[in-house]
Amino acid sequence: MRGAATIHNRPMPTKPLLLTMGDACGIGPEIIVKAFLRGAAEGCVVVGDVQVLRRASALGTPVPPLALLESPGEAAELPDGCLGVLQPPDLPAGLAVLPWGRVSRDSGLAASRCIEFAVRLVLNGQAAGLATAPIHKEALAAAGVGYPGHTEMLQALCARAGEEPAPVRMMLANDELRVVLVTIHQSLRRAIESLNFDAVLDTLRIVQRSAALFGLSSPRIGVAGLNPHAGEGGLFGDEEIRFITPAVAAARAEGIDARGPFAPDTVFMRARHTDNHPGEFDVVVAMTHDHGLIPVKYLGVEHGVNVTLGLPLVRTSPDHGTAFDIAGRGLADPSSLEAALRMARGMVALATATTPMTPAPA
Amino acid sequence: MRGAATIHNRPMPTKPLLLTMGDACGIGPEIIVKAFLRGAAEGCVVVGDVQVLRRASALGTPVPPLALLESPGEAAELPDGCLGVLQPPDLPAGLAVLPWGRVSRDSGLAASRCIEFAVRLVLNGQAAGLATAPIHKEALAAAGVGYPGHTEMLQALCARAGEEPAPVRMMLANDELRVVLVTIHQSLRRAIESLNFDAVLDTLRIVQRSAALFGLSSPRIGVAGLNPHAGEGGLFGDEEIRFITPAVAAARAEGIDARGPFAPDTVFMRARHTDNHPGEFDVVVAMTHDHGLIPVKYLGVEHGVNVTLGLPLVRTSPDHGTAFDIAGRGLADPSSLEAALRMARGMVALATATTPMTPAPA
Repeated sequence: MRGAATIHNRPMPTKPLLLTMGDACGIGPEIIVKAFLRGAAEGCVVVGDVQVLRRASALGTPVPPLALLESPGEAAELPDGCLGVLQPPDLPAGLAVLPWGRVSRDSGLAASRCIEFAVRLVLNGQAAGLATAPIHKEALAAAGVGYPGHTEMLQALCARAGEEPAPVRMMLANDELRVVLVTIHQSLRRAIESLNFDAVLDTLRIVQRSAALFGLSSPRIGVAGLNPHAGEGGLFGDEEIRFITPAVAAARAEGIDARGPFAPDTVFMRARHTDNHPGEFDVVVAMTHDHGLIPVKYLGVEHGVNVTLGLPLVRTSPDHGTAFDIAGRGLADPSSLEAALRMARGMVALATATTPMTPAPA
Repeated sequence: MRGAATIHNRPMPTKPLLLTMGDACGIGPEIIVKAFLRGAAEGCVVVGDVQVLRRASALGTPVPPLALLESPGEAAELPDGCLGVLQPPDLPAGLAVLPWGRVSRDSGLAASRCIEFAVRLVLNGQAAGLATAPIHKEALAAAGVGYPGHTEMLQALCARAGEEPAPVRMMLANDELRVVLVTIHQSLRRAIESLNFDAVLDTLRIVQRSAALFGLSSPRIGVAGLNPHAGEGGLFGDEEIRFITPAVAAARAEGIDARGPFAPDTVFMRARHTDNHPGEFDVVVAMTHDHGLIPVKYLGVEHGVNVTLGLPLVRTSPDHGTAFDIAGRGLADPSSLEAALRMARGMVALATATTPMTPAPA
């Protein structure tokens, strides 16, 4: 293996990004192979099941050679065109013969074990960061994995590994818009109940602390209200008056450039960055999953990236799911995963250059 | 006055569209004058205060001559370039000296009286339909008008005038997307509480009955869920299981081409019509105000139109508000109002040709 420092001013080999395979019955393995064949997974090592990746490779041509690795560091020794795979030791057998596009306990279990394995490698310094292919929440539930999604699972795994449990937030970003969500994977009714002053203020603090990873020192944050017209002065709900406005004021008192709350139906349009429409905000904070995700996805999911903010590691993912309806048919589009890999590389570069990845104390 | 029938095969003069002036302190009067000067208000008569319109005219050049009319039918006699105005007899005095961009009781009262006056004229057959400039909900409230918006007010006015009270729904449409809302102007918490099987099924029936006004005989309706991922099989809320899915099934049993519920964050993208992306649906039904309005407004409000479905009259409006922040400065863009007038004309033409405007019995 090549050492950490090299002679002749050759660049230090960077640690690989890890790419978890996601649900074996969805499009995750297929988009990983496609992204690799399109040159977008350079410097990445897949954490997954070799047979599952082989099955996914067979959906197209050419089929890349897969190399089973013992450790992330071995990736630097791989010949060009060879995709490195780390296979966790405790994966269920027979994953590659599960039917495409079906919820499966084994597939849910395998997906979660790949994530656990990858997180350990990043936290112990053997890998630079994490990109994750889609998992299926019902498969996770069938496997008894008690997390509704990646975000909650990563937060718990980082805490378990000896890190301080820290609040995290989901960010969705594309070329036009960055959105950070205060609440995510719960019913809309429970999301409303779980909103409060601290949830909003924590979100604003996380955005502020994470902004350096996107090359921003003090992001202009637009806060969307919860209710139609941001409550219309209290006529349509009082959450804006009771805690969203106070949380924005508290954030501003800490030097965070937050403004709002604004009407949810226009704040995203105001934040939209295009060549002939410079956005008013760098980030929009949305109270609910769909307020935030509808505008990010409206123009198409090809280039959207999901980023978990507040973790002690870099983590991105495509902004689509397992797409069981087209799994196994060779139709899946790897563009969003490719965008996720690009963003993870950029974040790793900025984190290495400038930013401590552990959250600041509250 | 010209008679209803003319000689020499000249076309029957069509009844005018009425255009209510909206809140006198907002941008409504200004965009009305601008739309007229740009030729987009042909065949329209404004229902409003002449002095308010004169003040708005003074924000730009040229200033059109305003003609005070006694009845809508006189509009046919007006010379080109002259804007006809019907002034309700009971407007408060001094509207044209109210400060721009401020909530005012008198302005709220005037706005509501213009709407009442216009609705009577349409219902008694003197006008073809209604386009409404923006009102301010706090001004309405200050005037003791107990409706949160146009939609609820129009529904009540049509009922009072001897029509059967019928459920109505708000539709927002632009060149890419038509969205119909099950709930509108209430807090998100109350909106969730007010959703049920009947609210969803009524919406689907209204869309089906109204579709002829848009040249569609059996629209493909995509129904958005309420919860993230449309509840993810019950993991994130049960409204989809309890009543949205059953309402879609009931609508299908009536011959309505409704499908879903689908995840709110992707159904709008799937319905989006562009030159290189034919939408999967003609209309999306959204459970909440902002689920539906965020995507319609995301690309800009210039061309969005608000249509009230289920009324016994044609009614459209721009999809923006009073814009108090720029009122009185000559900066307002009349494009959305112009789109509303175009759509109202198209609906009137199709209604005259093919469709009874009174709702079918339930």
